Amino acid sequence: MQQYFITGPAKDRLVIEDKETLKHMFQVMRLVEGQELVLVFDDGIKRLAKVLDHQQHLLQVLEPIDDQVELPVEVTIASGFLKGDKLDFVTQKATELGAMGIWAYPADWSVVKWDAKKLAKKEEKLEKIALGAAQQSKRNRLPQVSLFAQQKDFLAELAHFDRIWVAYEESAKRGEQSRLATELKACQAGEKILIIFGPEGGISPREVALFEAAGATSLGLGPRILRTETAPLYALSAISYALEMSR
Amino acid sequence: MQQYFITGPAKDRLVIEDKETLKHMFQVMRLVEGQELVLVFDDGIKRLAKVLDHQQHLLQVLEPIDDQVELPVEVTIASGFLKGDKLDFVTQKATELGAMGIWAYPADWSVVKWDAKKLAKKEEKLEKIALGAAQQSKRNRLPQVSLFAQQKDFLAELAHFDRIWVAYEESAKRGEQSRLATELKACQAGEKILIIFGPEGGISPREVALFEAAGATSLGLGPRILRTETAPLYALSAISYALEMSR
Repeated sequence: MQQYFITGPAKDRLVIEDKETLKHMFQVMRLVEGQELVLVFDDGIKRLAKVLDHQQHLLQVLEPIDDQVELPVEVTIASGFLKGDKLDFVTQKATELGAMGIWAYPADWSVVKWDAKKLAKKEEKLEKIALGAAQQSKRNRLPQVSLFAQQKDFLAELAHFDRIWVAYEESAKRGEQSRLATELKACQAGEKILIIFGPEGGISPREVALFEAAGATSLGLGPRILRTETAPLYALSAISYALEMSR
Repeated sequence: MQQYFITGPAKDRLVIEDKETLKHMFQVMRLVEGQELVLVFDDGIKRLAKVLDHQQHLLQVLEPIDDQVELPVEVTIASGFLKGDKLDFVTQKATELGAMGIWAYPADWSVVKWDAKKLAKKEEKLEKIALGAAQQSKRNRLPQVSLFAQQKDFLAELAHFDRIWVAYEESAKRGEQSRLATELKACQAGEKILIIFGPEGGISPREVALFEAAGATSLGLGPRILRTETAPLYALSAISYALEMSR
């Protein structure tokens, strides 16, 4: 059944006003009176709903559905600004794989430079991709997308996490294979985890020092060299396997 | 350092003859006398080599390099034929993540239909993608790409594996979360594992029955619905985490 995220608290009846949602419900899916759908309000609970009046865009909310598919920890991934449409790819796949935050920052070795206008446009595009992927993968939560104009604003956010991991290729090259497992074994439900990835050229030693000074742990993601857009998918899959599948 | 796969047994000296390799070595990388590179022959051992004569394309092989990055099990992923360039994506990412085989078969619910000519062209393209990704991710082995024209030829291959898993959305929906972990805990080094994925529309009940009759176990890949091209990446990452990172 089609699922939609609705901004705001749960209600018994509502008129859909968001343009994109309206378009998808009544033009793409052509929903009519009596047809059922799933709504997810800000509380993250899925609720069955049905169309009361398709011309007025009026829906009635029925009972909650017992279906919770979120990771037991809140994972934010932060990538250096990447070339081309790689952040689109990361956003779609990280949303499917359960990320709660999808961030990007201007890394020392990022090749692309984006001004404020470009950043706003890019963020809007990524938000749409995250919304589509969250609806398709039946998430309870919509990941938050943030692109930081300044590296210092990104650094200021580090204080809000319980664990910060830096995916550092040098750790992988040194054969460091167990730190991720040690961290995951110590993880408690509800923890907020930030995982930092570099741009194509990698993370600079200056950045690694800054992140470590802010409490980050550098770790490897297996023995093979992963492209920068593949590494977040490995990390999210490993977290799911460790915390959802094998505990 | 740039790495190249060379077909055949290891040699002390060799003249490069493969057109693509020649082009990359001497036109893209512009290697000249004395410059070093890494060669991987059919034995999967990385060896340092240097250019003796760049006009004759003559290389000398120096000492082996102690660098083994292959998964402890041989994983083949088999996807239903997928629309557009999704198999390109799966091939690149599965190669980075350590797959030894990348197969696709005409599934009951595959939308695309490819004739022999199209299949041969597609296979050649995927082989190039796998080669590029294997060189970039510094693999010791080059994954084998196979596109099956007939479903029965694919089915005939199932007998050659120690474990066969079917990534079945219905298993994920039923909340089946532990079978993958149970299987991975029982895995021995060297085992040959086949993981079967459906096309966009999923695996048909008839196919599930056929695969199970051939010894396959149906299992879920976490609670979130993954797109068909994302599921192999989850499986390979989970295998790496279970067998390389947390054992």
